[in-house]
Amino acid sequence: MPVPLSAIATKDAFVAAVGGCYEKSPWVAERAFAQGPFASVTSLAAAMKQTLANATDDEVLSLLRAHPDLAGKAALRGDVTAESAAEQAKAGLGSLTEAELSKLTSLNERYTAKFGFPFILAVRNASKRVIFAALERRMAGDLVEERAEALAQVHKIAWLRLLDSVEGNGKGFLTCHVLDVASGTPAAGMSVTLTRLGDHGDLPSSYAFTTNEDGRLDGPALKGPDFCAGAYEWTFHVGEYFAAKGVATAAQPFLGDVPIRFGIDNPEEHYHVPLLCSPWTFSTYRGS
Amino acid sequence: MPVPLSAIATKDAFVAAVGGCYEKSPWVAERAFAQGPFASVTSLAAAMKQTLANATDDEVLSLLRAHPDLAGKAALRGDVTAESAAEQAKAGLGSLTEAELSKLTSLNERYTAKFGFPFILAVRNASKRVIFAALERRMAGDLVEERAEALAQVHKIAWLRLLDSVEGNGKGFLTCHVLDVASGTPAAGMSVTLTRLGDHGDLPSSYAFTTNEDGRLDGPALKGPDFCAGAYEWTFHVGEYFAAKGVATAAQPFLGDVPIRFGIDNPEEHYHVPLLCSPWTFSTYRGS
Amino acid sequence: MPVPLSAIATKDAFVAAVGGCYEKSPWVAERAFAQGPFASVTSLAAAMKQTLANATDDEVLSLLRAHPDLAGKAALRGDVTAESAAEQAKAGLGSLTEAELSKLTSLNERYTAKFGFPFILAVRNASKRVIFAALERRMAGDLVEERAEALAQVHKIAWLRLLDSVEGNGKGFLTCHVLDVASGTPAAGMSVTLTRLGDHGDLPSSYAFTTNEDGRLDGPALKGPDFCAGAYEWTFHVGEYFAAKGVATAAQPFLGDVPIRFGIDNPEEHYHVPLLCSPWTFSTYRGS
Amino acid sequence: MPVPLSAIATKDAFVAAVGGCYEKSPWVAERAFAQGPFASVTSLAAAMKQTLANATDDEVLSLLRAHPDLAGKAALRGDVTAESAAEQAKAGLGSLTEAELSKLTSLNERYTAKFGFPFILAVRNASKRVIFAALERRMAGDLVEERAEALAQVHKIAWLRLLDSVEGNGKGFLTCHVLDVASGTPAAGMSVTLTRLGDHGDLPSSYAFTTNEDGRLDGPALKGPDFCAGAYEWTFHVGEYFAAKGVATAAQPFLGDVPIRFGIDNPEEHYHVPLLCSPWTFSTYRGS
Repeated sequence: MPVPLSAIATKDAFVAAVGGCYEKSPWVAERAFAQGPFASVTSLAAAMKQTLANATDDEVLSLLRAHPDLAGKAALRGDVTAESAAEQAKAGLGSLTEAELSKLTSLNERYTAKFGFPFILAVRNASKRVIFAALERRMAGDLVEERAEALAQVHKIAWLRLLDSVEGNGKGFLTCHVLDVASGTPAAGMSVTLTRLGDHGDLPSSYAFTTNEDGRLDGPALKGPDFCAGAYEWTFHVGEYFAAKGVATAAQPFLGDVPIRFGIDNPEEHYHVPLLCSPWTFSTYRGS
Repeated sequence: MPVPLSAIATKDAFVAAVGGCYEKSPWVAERAFAQGPFASVTSLAAAMKQTLANATDDEVLSLLRAHPDLAGKAALRGDVTAESAAEQAKAGLGSLTEAELSKLTSLNERYTAKFGFPFILAVRNASKRVIFAALERRMAGDLVEERAEALAQVHKIAWLRLLDSVEGNGKGFLTCHVLDVASGTPAAGMSVTLTRLGDHGDLPSSYAFTTNEDGRLDGPALKGPDFCAGAYEWTFHVGEYFAAKGVATAAQPFLGDVPIRFGIDNPEEHYHVPLLCSPWTFSTYRGS
Repeated sequence: MPVPLSAIATKDAFVAAVGGCYEKSPWVAERAFAQGPFASVTSLAAAMKQTLANATDDEVLSLLRAHPDLAGKAALRGDVTAESAAEQAKAGLGSLTEAELSKLTSLNERYTAKFGFPFILAVRNASKRVIFAALERRMAGDLVEERAEALAQVHKIAWLRLLDSVEGNGKGFLTCHVLDVASGTPAAGMSVTLTRLGDHGDLPSSYAFTTNEDGRLDGPALKGPDFCAGAYEWTFHVGEYFAAKGVATAAQPFLGDVPIRFGIDNPEEHYHVPLLCSPWTFSTYRGS
Repeated sequence: MPVPLSAIATKDAFVAAVGGCYEKSPWVAERAFAQGPFASVTSLAAAMKQTLANATDDEVLSLLRAHPDLAGKAALRGDVTAESAAEQAKAGLGSLTEAELSKLTSLNERYTAKFGFPFILAVRNASKRVIFAALERRMAGDLVEERAEALAQVHKIAWLRLLDSVEGNGKGFLTCHVLDVASGTPAAGMSVTLTRLGDHGDLPSSYAFTTNEDGRLDGPALKGPDFCAGAYEWTFHVGEYFAAKGVATAAQPFLGDVPIRFGIDNPEEHYHVPLLCSPWTFSTYRGS
């Protein structure tokens, strides 16, 4: 369970809570603590990132080297941090075939031989296919590029662990806006549902809305503790909307219920996800 | 089971196969037969539509009046054509609450009193909400408009029944095209799956593809008998594609697997469904 | 020069100002006056439209018949209202070739013979090509459809004349919003210019802006008397924006200065015109 | 005048033609010649680029150092290559104010002091604003990044000079495709014009087309020698198209003539520039 920011005001509590975000390197949290107190997980993460930017090359290298091989011997014998084990399991690395395991081991070894540190990838949202594609691509890079890429992955891993450890400041929220580009007006009266994908324990998982005269919802679709990082899906009832307006469509309309699946990476930010639609097209984007 | 076009070459076989498309009005098929033989379901449907355009006002009115009330007494006592019964069941009209049924009955009566024929709606893809919205909206129309609207619905109903009765000519097919609008290039090597939604008996229901160098599939995703009217869903593995290319994204990417749900109304046509995407936007449309 | 709404508070002033909006039919203004006073040109127009909806069929027919033939004998001998003459000149009807004039005259005659009133089209923004296309298309309609279409054109003509006669209430304004869909963020610091197309006398004709951190301008681009009906063009300096960000592009970028040309029909409304762009795509729409 | 590929078959002719593409460094052309003969300007450019990738660090550094300061003393006293002089003039560097010149000189000096080579930017399509923004941004980079960036600019400069020196292989061409996303069909019968912007001597500068039943032009809009690098503008007559179809729009339509301005960087490639439009939205992208 994530703890509130207010509960990590002492150095000991801070390091206990977030010392594991950077693999086997609590020194990152120890040094970052001085930059607190932090008003947000976002600024806490930035402080730890800055700490690494200020660290020596050797310190960074030792951090990179502290990571276990993906699906490597350490993982096989259970000798990795709990965080690593959970992340690797989620990416399906526990279910590799013999051939895949052997290929991965060999690629890992070649990678480590070339760069001097293991191949690191934030695997929680990665599939096996992505992992192999990334390994092959990054194997071809040069050391300078690859150190930068490995460090970028380390920060991603730390961010995901941090969100599991500390509650956000509750300032983020989710909105949408539906425009009817066939008539050049807001789409009023459209039914919209929002579903949280994946496992989020006791949180509600589905919400129903109707757009107002301006094509928006009356207030945020999600905010506060309900608005956590993860994958979500809107369903916009576009077919119903046009049918109710009397727009002529086919017996089997081209667009009926339109799902829009998207991810929330930072629950302290505003996510605006508009839909532009006619009976024959739709588009979406991260708005502001 | 739909029969092939070749199996309805005699007038008797023709009327047996498609005489029920227009509710209790086999005369439409009888007259349209002379315009055959038909090389496609599309031209067969056009011939029946033209037959009605040439019919007298009284004949059209009697066709409109041949339709049962939605969820009306006839439906309740099982006294409607098998086609009507199945269509009404699919729209959830069997599960109306007492209050909904009473409201629908009352609206139906007012509608019939105003226009002289029952309220007609192609309900197979309609929800209860759409049915009520359409009733309220159309109640406000004038007779000329409403006769035209009712006839349009009758043609939709006939089209759906026709597709259940006769096999298409097999010339339709489905294609897609993925453009990476972040780099201005075709999206090569993207995994794409296609799923058929709803009940289609023994047909395969899921297909997996990878885009080629031009961002297209090598050949149609569906064609021939597999390509039938109904609802479908592509899943474009956009998150994987950008991750494999090394495009920097968030730990929880905004776009991961992108579903595109769409309907095929006429299985004798080409449906082209492109995807334009960056890590932060996507759009689709019916292309050509 | 348009007069302010406050200057048409008496019936005489009202009819003097707007009595010519409906061709040779000041009775429309006379009857509509009672629904005032009007807080906006929009509500004034709605009142005149409603007056016609309440008029008898004969009255509407006489209004339709009051319109001159496009480029007809009356126009040729200068025997049309000043408003009609100016509108026909703007559409290039003064420069028809002999053959075009003869074709138009013949189509006009056939149209009038079929429907009992002359062909009416709001020509101020129409080209010769549109006029001929509309005539051919509408000639094929039936009387009920065509009366509705003719009346719709009459309302458009009246609206344009009304905007020339009476000042709007000054509540409309123009905004934009630029999203960088390559990075999923607002496009901050982009140069934007706005130009008014056509002839607007002494009004300024070009404005320069820079987008703020949210990708918007600090305040409306136009409002008050400067915000009048007509054609406009944004130029978004998209190429410069991406070059300044260090996004790799071609030596001759695909997108440099992006013009977006659009029309303002109702200067009492808010027009929001967003731009979504990457170095390889852009889109716009009427937003809200 | 660019010479044909066939005219540079001997080493002397080759170096005479393209030896100046890399500033004061004919050795790049001399070494690249061995990889010929070249079937395209594209492959010729790739060979020269590869030559630099194979060169020593010192050789690359000497190439970077061979570039004059932008608007520097050498430029002021006319002591730069003709290519540089023309490029700098085109970016408006001849019309810098005293203050701008002084600022640029000072930034150039700081840049050179930091990195050991002058600030290099492909200025032909750059404005003063872009030049200053790029200088400030790149000043903050580290040496490894900045060497890569400088080299990327050198390749852009070489590409533009190469296109001025050698004729392409004539295999590139330009197409478009217009989709009506209000009706889900190709936009047939739309008028389209194409204009070449800037100075292209005796080449024709404007072309008129009409879209066919599939929303495309009958054949390429440009190909062969007419299809050269530079800036172009389509005008799609969207307003006319919808008016001719009888789609109801405002008296002053939101979309009338829609300009789409775009650049051709490589005249040996196919450029496909689609337009998706309704009366209220449009979008474009580089297609394939």
